[in-house]
Amino acid sequence: MTLVQEAFQEISAADFFYRNRDIAGFTSPSRAIYSTIRELVENSLDACEMGGIPPDIYVRVSHESGPVDGPGTYIVRVEDNGIGVPGEIIPSAFGQVLYGSKYKLRQTRGTFGLGGKMALLYGQITTHSEAMIASSNNPRKRIIEYQIRIDIQQNKPVIVKRKQHSNPAHWRGTIIEFRTEADYSRAMAKILEYMKQTAIIVPYANITFVDPRGRLYKFVRGTTKVPKAPTETSPHPHGVDVETVQRLLKITESKSLQEFLRTHFQRIGETTARKFLQYAGLGQKKTPRNMGPDDIVKLVNAMKSYEDFLAPDPTCLSPLGEDLLATGIRKELGVTQEQIDDGSAFVTTLQRKPDTYAGFPFIVEVGLASAKAIQAEGRILLFRFANKIPLLFDEASDVSWNVVNELIDWRNYRVIPGETPLAVFVHVCSTKIPYKTVGKEFIADRPEVEHEILNAVREAGRSLKIYLSRQEHLQREKKRLDVFEKYLPKVAVFSTRLAKEKKEPDIKQLLKGVMKYGPEEEGEEGTTRGSEAEEEQA
Amino acid sequence: MTLVQEAFQEISAADFFYRNRDIAGFTSPSRAIYSTIRELVENSLDACEMGGIPPDIYVRVSHESGPVDGPGTYIVRVEDNGIGVPGEIIPSAFGQVLYGSKYKLRQTRGTFGLGGKMALLYGQITTHSEAMIASSNNPRKRIIEYQIRIDIQQNKPVIVKRKQHSNPAHWRGTIIEFRTEADYSRAMAKILEYMKQTAIIVPYANITFVDPRGRLYKFVRGTTKVPKAPTETSPHPHGVDVETVQRLLKITESKSLQEFLRTHFQRIGETTARKFLQYAGLGQKKTPRNMGPDDIVKLVNAMKSYEDFLAPDPTCLSPLGEDLLATGIRKELGVTQEQIDDGSAFVTTLQRKPDTYAGFPFIVEVGLASAKAIQAEGRILLFRFANKIPLLFDEASDVSWNVVNELIDWRNYRVIPGETPLAVFVHVCSTKIPYKTVGKEFIADRPEVEHEILNAVREAGRSLKIYLSRQEHLQREKKRLDVFEKYLPKVAVFSTRLAKEKKEPDIKQLLKGVMKYGPEEEGEEGTTRGSEAEEEQA
Repeated sequence: MTLVQEAFQEISAADFFYRNRDIAGFTSPSRAIYSTIRELVENSLDACEMGGIPPDIYVRVSHESGPVDGPGTYIVRVEDNGIGVPGEIIPSAFGQVLYGSKYKLRQTRGTFGLGGKMALLYGQITTHSEAMIASSNNPRKRIIEYQIRIDIQQNKPVIVKRKQHSNPAHWRGTIIEFRTEADYSRAMAKILEYMKQTAIIVPYANITFVDPRGRLYKFVRGTTKVPKAPTETSPHPHGVDVETVQRLLKITESKSLQEFLRTHFQRIGETTARKFLQYAGLGQKKTPRNMGPDDIVKLVNAMKSYEDFLAPDPTCLSPLGEDLLATGIRKELGVTQEQIDDGSAFVTTLQRKPDTYAGFPFIVEVGLASAKAIQAEGRILLFRFANKIPLLFDEASDVSWNVVNELIDWRNYRVIPGETPLAVFVHVCSTKIPYKTVGKEFIADRPEVEHEILNAVREAGRSLKIYLSRQEHLQREKKRLDVFEKYLPKVAVFSTRLAKEKKEPDIKQLLKGVMKYGPEEEGEEGTTRGSEAEEEQA
Repeated sequence: MTLVQEAFQEISAADFFYRNRDIAGFTSPSRAIYSTIRELVENSLDACEMGGIPPDIYVRVSHESGPVDGPGTYIVRVEDNGIGVPGEIIPSAFGQVLYGSKYKLRQTRGTFGLGGKMALLYGQITTHSEAMIASSNNPRKRIIEYQIRIDIQQNKPVIVKRKQHSNPAHWRGTIIEFRTEADYSRAMAKILEYMKQTAIIVPYANITFVDPRGRLYKFVRGTTKVPKAPTETSPHPHGVDVETVQRLLKITESKSLQEFLRTHFQRIGETTARKFLQYAGLGQKKTPRNMGPDDIVKLVNAMKSYEDFLAPDPTCLSPLGEDLLATGIRKELGVTQEQIDDGSAFVTTLQRKPDTYAGFPFIVEVGLASAKAIQAEGRILLFRFANKIPLLFDEASDVSWNVVNELIDWRNYRVIPGETPLAVFVHVCSTKIPYKTVGKEFIADRPEVEHEILNAVREAGRSLKIYLSRQEHLQREKKRLDVFEKYLPKVAVFSTRLAKEKKEPDIKQLLKGVMKYGPEEEGEEGTTRGSEAEEEQA
């Protein structure tokens, strides 16, 4: 009998993601440049929002060598005006996988602390060159610049060069520049779509993009109102497991279990703590110090099943808000106030009350838009967003797709499938988006999340229904009036002659009489623009 | 101006996957028990096949506490007769993420070296208990047993206990047993489906499953013929990047670039090496020692673009083969040889020639089956397999789904959509399956892979078409004969009387004369069973 023996080895986290870069969205030179831009822009937006700063993001992709209609070498540069990264942290923050500021219970675009490093790593393994990172986290201090590489086998940054620059303009922010392999021509459409949708969901950002052919794309902010920054939060008792509780027990300074619960978890005050401990059957003699393994399991199970905790605290979340979402939608669909006023376009937005899944708070915001500008090609256009980033790939696997295409009967909302131009916008924000892939492409169908999206779309659907019914009636009415307008003058002439009168009756008054709906779109005297009338109703 | 400062931290690989267990398929208690069983069974199958051993896998899930119709505590036990794990390696092999034997260029079920550890980790964080692992990698030596836990923050195994047992039965294999939270009732259907499909694609395995209610499921092997084990291979020059080449340059003992290429890459002999180096423009003075960064990039780019390398070597792959695939399909659909012989069922299988994507060899095998047993409910049943594991989730995101539902016009193959009962089986094997998630649920749409699957299904479709055409004709013929059979006796009686004859003519001969197709399904004299006649044709 021959004994087959397997060789075992340990690999670093960087090595794991290097070998499996497909799962982080770095599959091919075209997908990689898309993911690169996306991950860096998202880090930049996070860095701005943490400081409450209206983002100014500058992205440049320039061609260096190789074909322009296939994989070649490009230089990517991304600049932001965010809070910056402290000098001593730059090498690890950009050159070490699983090192970062995203490992908190807080709503951020990045969740894995991985994307930016994967972008640099991909550049390095395809072009074998260093990355330049410059940052200032204090306008009164100097700018620190690094040239780094990633030691993939060790998962450590290698510092090639370090420089300091004076900072006379009191700049704060971060600049990244590096060489990478890219198939820009194949990725272009998706990259522009990404920018366009980012402009919808971050309407307070300026994004400038210079593409390899030197074309300039400018997405100008529609407002400078930045939503309040998301804040870090403690875990909710419904969302914990044995590992979390054990870690907290290890570091806590609390003397009693009551104090421990109040200190390390959200939504637990003195009364709740007391009642809960009774429910859990953990006697007064138990302290954080003397909890055995079975006690911990008991505590965690009780935390999961106790029904009287308040729902997770949503104040740590930073949704967009109905106004900003509407601003973004109107801006990017090119819908004007005039079109909305005259009824040729419709936009409604809606924010649901916070809900929770597995101990994580989340808020769903939706928008519905109908306008001629929507090129639906026989289907409903779906725009998906999560923590203020657009999701562009694997649409059919997303929970929202299921809601829009399977669960909703649009005919109930007067939508004629395949005919009515309709766009649906879904934004989910949470301290933890239930992504199914590291590439952040689609949201898993958690029942609570699906339920909220469904209700949100239904609720918004009611306004849509009113709009579409009105449109239907107006069209029918228009046809009816057309008939009157065509024949009434003839009837008037004929009957005037018949009655041997000299002056024909005033048909205008008659026509007005048969109108069922207000004439505000006709441009009445005294109202120069319909918008004013509408504004009063709003 | 207030300066917001972000706190940065480093987390271990185990911590990363603990925090993001959703992406590895450990989303909920029901999904987790499915993933647990699946990952452990797949490791066991790999361990058997590496030794060329027909697998005997025993799985037991027993209920311990909590509700049986919701999340409760269960004990999972998996036993195999594989090659075993050396004693000193057991703790790391099961208790350290990113440590394993799967980080090679070789066709294995596991690719991330992650699943088994995630199963133990999930058990630990939900029940706070240790895992027992016992293994013997040499029947002449003692069995080593460990009780371990995972230190998630450090990503290190913690050895709680170590024992040795005598091994009088000369056992070899591995046993794992641990407590975990599970929602078995919700996962049951998927788990049984998984076992059933595993039996199709590993028809040489015995799988025994004892479920929490004590029900015994036995999937008995249909053959003991184990396909030759996959072998490890060197990288193909088309599939390398700068990092790979740099690592090899660091460890190589080759003195010249020619020798370096011949030693560390597949498909490069002396002539190819010489011609290639000329093409790459790397002068004779270059040696593995004096290659600068630019030289490495030059070498890698030349490797990618040089067109005269032989395609990646597929002999390292271990496909199932047409016969074994047909055996598996017939066994699990319950299609008998009689049914195939009498035309009431049809199974065809086909293996394509090896092809490659991004430097990795792959082979596509497909099967098509039509039988009354297929409960299609108006659609084509699709069974997806990759490196001999079934893929059950996210079907619509898989490359095969696209081929079967979008790219093929089934009417060309006489399939009446929604009526003809049809099952399609697709098996892709490769040294690297292009999975899009760590949970190994679906294959990305690499153009080369899609193309091969499409051609495979089309090719197999031709046999299907012949079968279905014949079925159509037979049915039409049957109708025609029915008419003759009904009226001919009456005509015979009538005309006998009319002709004043006494004896009616022999209609049997007449009926035989109008038959267009052979009478083998009628049970002719001299042939006791139709199957024999068919066998000769085969």
